[in-house]
Amino acid sequence: MAQSRVTIKEVAAAAGVSTTTVSHVLNDVPGKRISSDTRARVFAAADRLGYAPNALARSLRTQRSNTIAIVGDEIATTPFAGKIILGAQDVALRRDSVVFVVNTGYRRDVEAREIEELLRRQIDGVLYASMYHREVELPPALSGLPTVVVNASCTDERVPWVTPEEVAGGADAAAVLLDAGHRRLAFINDVDPVPAAIGRERGFLRAIEDFGPGQVDVTVLTAESGPEGGYHAGLQVLGGEGRPTGVFCFNDRMAMGVYRAAYELGLRIPTDVSIVGFDNQDFIADGIAPSLTTIELPHYEMGAWAADRLFDLIAANAPEGAAPHTRLRGPVIHRNSVAPPSQASSPGGWHQPADRRGNA
Amino acid sequence: MAQSRVTIKEVAAAAGVSTTTVSHVLNDVPGKRISSDTRARVFAAADRLGYAPNALARSLRTQRSNTIAIVGDEIATTPFAGKIILGAQDVALRRDSVVFVVNTGYRRDVEAREIEELLRRQIDGVLYASMYHREVELPPALSGLPTVVVNASCTDERVPWVTPEEVAGGADAAAVLLDAGHRRLAFINDVDPVPAAIGRERGFLRAIEDFGPGQVDVTVLTAESGPEGGYHAGLQVLGGEGRPTGVFCFNDRMAMGVYRAAYELGLRIPTDVSIVGFDNQDFIADGIAPSLTTIELPHYEMGAWAADRLFDLIAANAPEGAAPHTRLRGPVIHRNSVAPPSQASSPGGWHQPADRRGNA
Repeated sequence: MAQSRVTIKEVAAAAGVSTTTVSHVLNDVPGKRISSDTRARVFAAADRLGYAPNALARSLRTQRSNTIAIVGDEIATTPFAGKIILGAQDVALRRDSVVFVVNTGYRRDVEAREIEELLRRQIDGVLYASMYHREVELPPALSGLPTVVVNASCTDERVPWVTPEEVAGGADAAAVLLDAGHRRLAFINDVDPVPAAIGRERGFLRAIEDFGPGQVDVTVLTAESGPEGGYHAGLQVLGGEGRPTGVFCFNDRMAMGVYRAAYELGLRIPTDVSIVGFDNQDFIADGIAPSLTTIELPHYEMGAWAADRLFDLIAANAPEGAAPHTRLRGPVIHRNSVAPPSQASSPGGWHQPADRRGNA
Repeated sequence: MAQSRVTIKEVAAAAGVSTTTVSHVLNDVPGKRISSDTRARVFAAADRLGYAPNALARSLRTQRSNTIAIVGDEIATTPFAGKIILGAQDVALRRDSVVFVVNTGYRRDVEAREIEELLRRQIDGVLYASMYHREVELPPALSGLPTVVVNASCTDERVPWVTPEEVAGGADAAAVLLDAGHRRLAFINDVDPVPAAIGRERGFLRAIEDFGPGQVDVTVLTAESGPEGGYHAGLQVLGGEGRPTGVFCFNDRMAMGVYRAAYELGLRIPTDVSIVGFDNQDFIADGIAPSLTTIELPHYEMGAWAADRLFDLIAANAPEGAAPHTRLRGPVIHRNSVAPPSQASSPGGWHQPADRRGNA
């Protein structure tokens, strides 16, 4: 059939215009100022000759559009989205493909419109990305389309997904503090029982248990997952008797708040108290002083893994029986907020509040 | 012509398949498992009857695709990009349109591929967005397409653009400090002579000049535009004789570094030194203690302004003679890093370094 296809030259000749004009009209290249009369002549000639426009002809040949999309719930408002996009884009470029990104803002109506416009334009597949680790249900419009879920699990078991390895992350945080010699630990966790909170706590406590029964005192408390929550939890956990010498925070933003609490309590970091964060948000972890030891979330790697998997699905050469669900472990980023517990931090000296200063 | 158009039902009847199947084949909806035999029958029937596929028919009727694109140089890696996207998206939704985002990573080859894929798919126009205020040259592929430049000026005078009003921002920062009673000021500026650095310095110095000749002592110094640069400049400017009581920083990240320097020098914020930032980066300005008074960059508003302008261009109803270039002024966000200069901050008391502590 491809051989008998009408060419763009024949349409141009029939319409009395250049092939460029035919291409602009039939591909509806926006902004080209072509008169409606010319447009009508081109369409009439294309209709008469049975000419199928380029995109259609191309897709008939290749069945590929070399374009994938990232459909993200909050792609525009979190610092993590960018890394997922970069990971996916680097893989896509190696596959000679480009990435279109749309932002749903958690609105199902917006998402449906965006997916409709994407599908209308031939995309090869979708990375369905969540900005926090949760379980998602795919919108019906994506059924049948190659799709991989990023940073979330999926209600549909057949859909591949990738999340961070939260349990290992929690265990890594515990190991950083235990290895430095700390035996009185606290975990300031997110008050929302999201998978990240559950997983990190499980890993943290399991590592302490594995370290040896009765070896470590550990306190777990919860707070809102921002600097304010971290600040209040920090005052609570560091301002009482038998305070911990090592504190693991659910995320870097909470750790910022704990820094402020420590400062106001006259406690030095890391001399009096060591802090470990989670996320490795550059602006925070590298910007605060002392710089924050933290566990990196593997957003770039999740984006890349998911894109690789998606191109496998598109090519329909996914290895038989391969496990479609993966958890990726982020590295520990060692900075300057962890040190061995000092003698000076023994009970008695700690609860003397320093004069409060404005900066922390 | 529209009336005589062959319908999808006629194609379905001729091919012996459902209209849904015809739609899936002709729109090349990916992932629908339709045999190549069925595909061939549908294409043959569509060819024979001279049927033009939906997207083409639709664009013929409306000449619109209800989709705009944001082509961004670093849309995936800065915290500002998200706000431009949200501003544009909110306007687009009101116009019943969706937004596709692509990230060029400053690579002209990637940009060309992305724009090619966008143009191939009928978009109504492009927001060409820069992640820092500079002058951009539009890629040739966008010529003729409605385009508005966001957060940058453009070498082509005919192209509308919107940037922050940097001069007013610098003047606002000076006013915050002058209004609080400060008369010894410093500006720690970006060492790169970007438009933001030039504009903010001009506004800052002009406001001081307007305040009255000889009324204010002012020092301008430059550093790398991150926390490290701010830290070293902070040590320099706050660690000498006749130190300023009010410091304006080129951005919030530099202000973070100045906080650390102040802390290490034993200076309290805002009692001993007041600090004003620029950008209003949430994670920083709201997270550090005391929270940072800063000038907001109007990214959301620039995205919204540019999208409004773009839809005007697309509708070709841009008001005659309207100025196509706009600078938007961001608000001052008053927080807790500015107070009147204290008596205690008079020369003599300031240069006594406190014992250095780890946290700032």
